[in-house]
Amino acid sequence: MQRIVVLAGGIGGARFLRGLKSAVPDADITVIGNTGDDIHLFGLKVCPDLDTVMYTLGGGIHEEQGWGRSDESFAVKEELAAYGVGPEWFGLGDRDFATHIVRTQMIAAGFPLSAVTEALCRRWQPGVRLLPMSDDRVETHVLIDDPDGEGRKAVHFQEYWVRLRAAAAAHAIVPVGAEQAKPAPGVLEALAEADVILFPPSNPVVSVGTILAVPGIREAVADAGVPVVGLSPIVGDAPVRGMADKVLAAVGVESTAAAVARHYGSGLLDGWLVDTVDAGRVGEVEAAGIRCRAVPLMMTDTEATARMAAEALRLAEEVRG
Amino acid sequence: MQRIVVLAGGIGGARFLRGLKSAVPDADITVIGNTGDDIHLFGLKVCPDLDTVMYTLGGGIHEEQGWGRSDESFAVKEELAAYGVGPEWFGLGDRDFATHIVRTQMIAAGFPLSAVTEALCRRWQPGVRLLPMSDDRVETHVLIDDPDGEGRKAVHFQEYWVRLRAAAAAHAIVPVGAEQAKPAPGVLEALAEADVILFPPSNPVVSVGTILAVPGIREAVADAGVPVVGLSPIVGDAPVRGMADKVLAAVGVESTAAAVARHYGSGLLDGWLVDTVDAGRVGEVEAAGIRCRAVPLMMTDTEATARMAAEALRLAEEVRG
Repeated sequence: MQRIVVLAGGIGGARFLRGLKSAVPDADITVIGNTGDDIHLFGLKVCPDLDTVMYTLGGGIHEEQGWGRSDESFAVKEELAAYGVGPEWFGLGDRDFATHIVRTQMIAAGFPLSAVTEALCRRWQPGVRLLPMSDDRVETHVLIDDPDGEGRKAVHFQEYWVRLRAAAAAHAIVPVGAEQAKPAPGVLEALAEADVILFPPSNPVVSVGTILAVPGIREAVADAGVPVVGLSPIVGDAPVRGMADKVLAAVGVESTAAAVARHYGSGLLDGWLVDTVDAGRVGEVEAAGIRCRAVPLMMTDTEATARMAAEALRLAEEVRG
Repeated sequence: MQRIVVLAGGIGGARFLRGLKSAVPDADITVIGNTGDDIHLFGLKVCPDLDTVMYTLGGGIHEEQGWGRSDESFAVKEELAAYGVGPEWFGLGDRDFATHIVRTQMIAAGFPLSAVTEALCRRWQPGVRLLPMSDDRVETHVLIDDPDGEGRKAVHFQEYWVRLRAAAAAHAIVPVGAEQAKPAPGVLEALAEADVILFPPSNPVVSVGTILAVPGIREAVADAGVPVVGLSPIVGDAPVRGMADKVLAAVGVESTAAAVARHYGSGLLDGWLVDTVDAGRVGEVEAAGIRCRAVPLMMTDTEATARMAAEALRLAEEVRG
């Protein structure tokens, strides 16, 4: 059985994984999920990326929105607002609240996030092994021009992304706590035993980049001795969804499919898929020592996404030679 | 302005208070609420009696049910059950959850329950000053015949009351932590400054009895030097609602309006109202040194309840002499 390890963020990672499962239903898939966008709200621990993967693969996702639960209601949030308790800009629905209540209760009882995630997945049966990148707290902060005053200030990634819609100029992205964090149990083992490692078209800075910022993970990917293949989240010099261009700019990387590949670098990446509209950049990527192919990269439905995943695995085999 | 202090449990206390407010709208009413039935559920601190008083007086109560919120939904609870997380026997609705989330978050931030209760009441504006009997944790446990096996076991009051519907034989009622608890800020001061102290037709064992079990409160009631008048929760030798007879039996008290008065005792009570059907017991109460009157005691609506409250205040004036 082919062992595939995927480093995933939220919506992009989750949708890619659905395509991957469809492309290779018998594969043994381990997902290392980003927890840098985790946030404590109302005293509850919220893990947006892990939940998006879990809900998407488990059939509970709000399809159009891409995050949160289907058939969602908002009574709790309305009541919290009636108490004057916010933030109101983060959309937590009633069904979603239950997930955070269970998680918070288990963490308070002493279970690490990896054990909690496993327990939550017992219900959702995502068909992959979902691991948080770390059981330690890592929280991505963004240094921005203060929207309410002079100077700069650091805000939680969710505040930058969800509340400010990435409209404030970002000067630095800091995964607070990452340097002290340890990979969660199973992460390094999964990488060491992988047959192929994939980077889905997730955000290269605040999703995959944050996972790679946990000491040991970047090295384990580089040293795995197996093909590492990524898919560009940038198509036609713009992010397919989200605001990756803003955070790429903050780390000094151009918003092109080739620049993202060079940002990961040939020390990490063996292969890179760009969209057909970016076929002109294949040479630029290959010049950086990374095998590159141009294929359709729009995840319009599961079938199209499965073809992308199959192309990534094909490129991996080609790289393996 | 007349200063009235009321020692209140849940539904009975809350409905009585609504009548009292209607009878004396200009009075300064302080409510000392029972917290012995507080319970931690799903990692959240739930205060059923305080909330019933707050919701009832604030217009948010589920009228027919007597507890919980009106227009309630149960998405969170359904989801928790889908995770296999219980208990399922405790009916927490989505709107109610928000209250417990706010409370738990404030307590985690270091606020005492009395400050939290005051904050919650800023929204509900109950028109009374609602104080928990104590900021310290007190939890009423009931020693019962184990419904699942041989022998006896102690269960949380809510498990006995809500899950088991008081069907298991109760041998003892223990307010765990009461001996070490201190009255919440304002409790002793309110009693010392009261013009009259009332015991509504709340449960004499697990509601009013638990409040009196906090060291200092019973003494403050007895030493206040003002009329203390109660209303019988037992009418025609049976509780008007709830299962007070079961917990009275556990403490060796007959389920009669007179026995409850004697249980409080003339050291505490100056006056006692029994229902007209129990007029035959007035002599028995007065023989115990407690002034007694028989008046209608069914809280069928706010008007009837206001008349009961007015009778209690009238008896207090009579006692004051």
